[in-house]
Amino acid sequence: MKDAEKTIGNMIDKQKVAFIGSVDSDGFPNMKAMLAPRKRVGIKEFYFTTNTSSLRTGQYKENSKACIYFYDRKFLYHGVMMIGTMEVLEDAASKEMIWRFGDTMYYKEGVTDPDYCVLKFTAHKGRYYHAFKNEVFDIE
Amino acid sequence: MKDAEKTIGNMIDKQKVAFIGSVDSDGFPNMKAMLAPRKRVGIKEFYFTTNTSSLRTGQYKENSKACIYFYDRKFLYHGVMMIGTMEVLEDAASKEMIWRFGDTMYYKEGVTDPDYCVLKFTAHKGRYYHAFKNEVFDIE
Repeated sequence: MKDAEKTIGNMIDKQKVAFIGSVDSDGFPNMKAMLAPRKRVGIKEFYFTTNTSSLRTGQYKENSKACIYFYDRKFLYHGVMMIGTMEVLEDAASKEMIWRFGDTMYYKEGVTDPDYCVLKFTAHKGRYYHAFKNEVFDIE
Repeated sequence: MKDAEKTIGNMIDKQKVAFIGSVDSDGFPNMKAMLAPRKRVGIKEFYFTTNTSSLRTGQYKENSKACIYFYDRKFLYHGVMMIGTMEVLEDAASKEMIWRFGDTMYYKEGVTDPDYCVLKFTAHKGRYYHAFKNEVFDIE
């Protein structure tokens, strides 16, 4: 890849769904589909909305090792996995940063709803799958 | 759920893609999209084709803790995750069991291709996501 940030970033921006991976207290991998990230900074930081009370949030508080995955269903085996860490942010500034009109559908008390929080993923490295090949890339 | 095997099994049979999770040697979760399983025994055993040389196969040989996930893109948050173990099978009987005409597209030497192997997932428990709720189920 000549420009990983552009190639991967463009692919990610087309997806409506992201998959996030965690490791549970027994050491088993877990995963779940999520709404696409509300915000990304290059391909280094990704911000998701989620429920503070959710299983995944609890797992990340115990063990921040994480991965995120985007899959383009139009092309079999076209996907990107990034490995890094996931932080659970519950401060007002972070919650306001990615809040959108309509989110009260999920969080009835609004942006200050204690069951609403932000997952911040920071990528360390990635693997890009395309055309039956895969390519590892580092993230500065 | 009255009949987890039927409800979950029917949902799985409609999917063209499965997602599999592993834990790498540094303890980070990894995941990847796969062709749907070639065979399932209830919702207890699932058999996938893959490359013996792949990253995932190597990870499962080191650490068999695994999860598989199916996601129905027609309904946001409709998915099922199962946690269990993944075995790498390289014996002739297992490889012949799920081989299909046309697989030479992926494995040029045919069913005995050393780069073709079978991933067998055995589920211990599951979590079913639907209608903004989730339900845990045990697998006998």
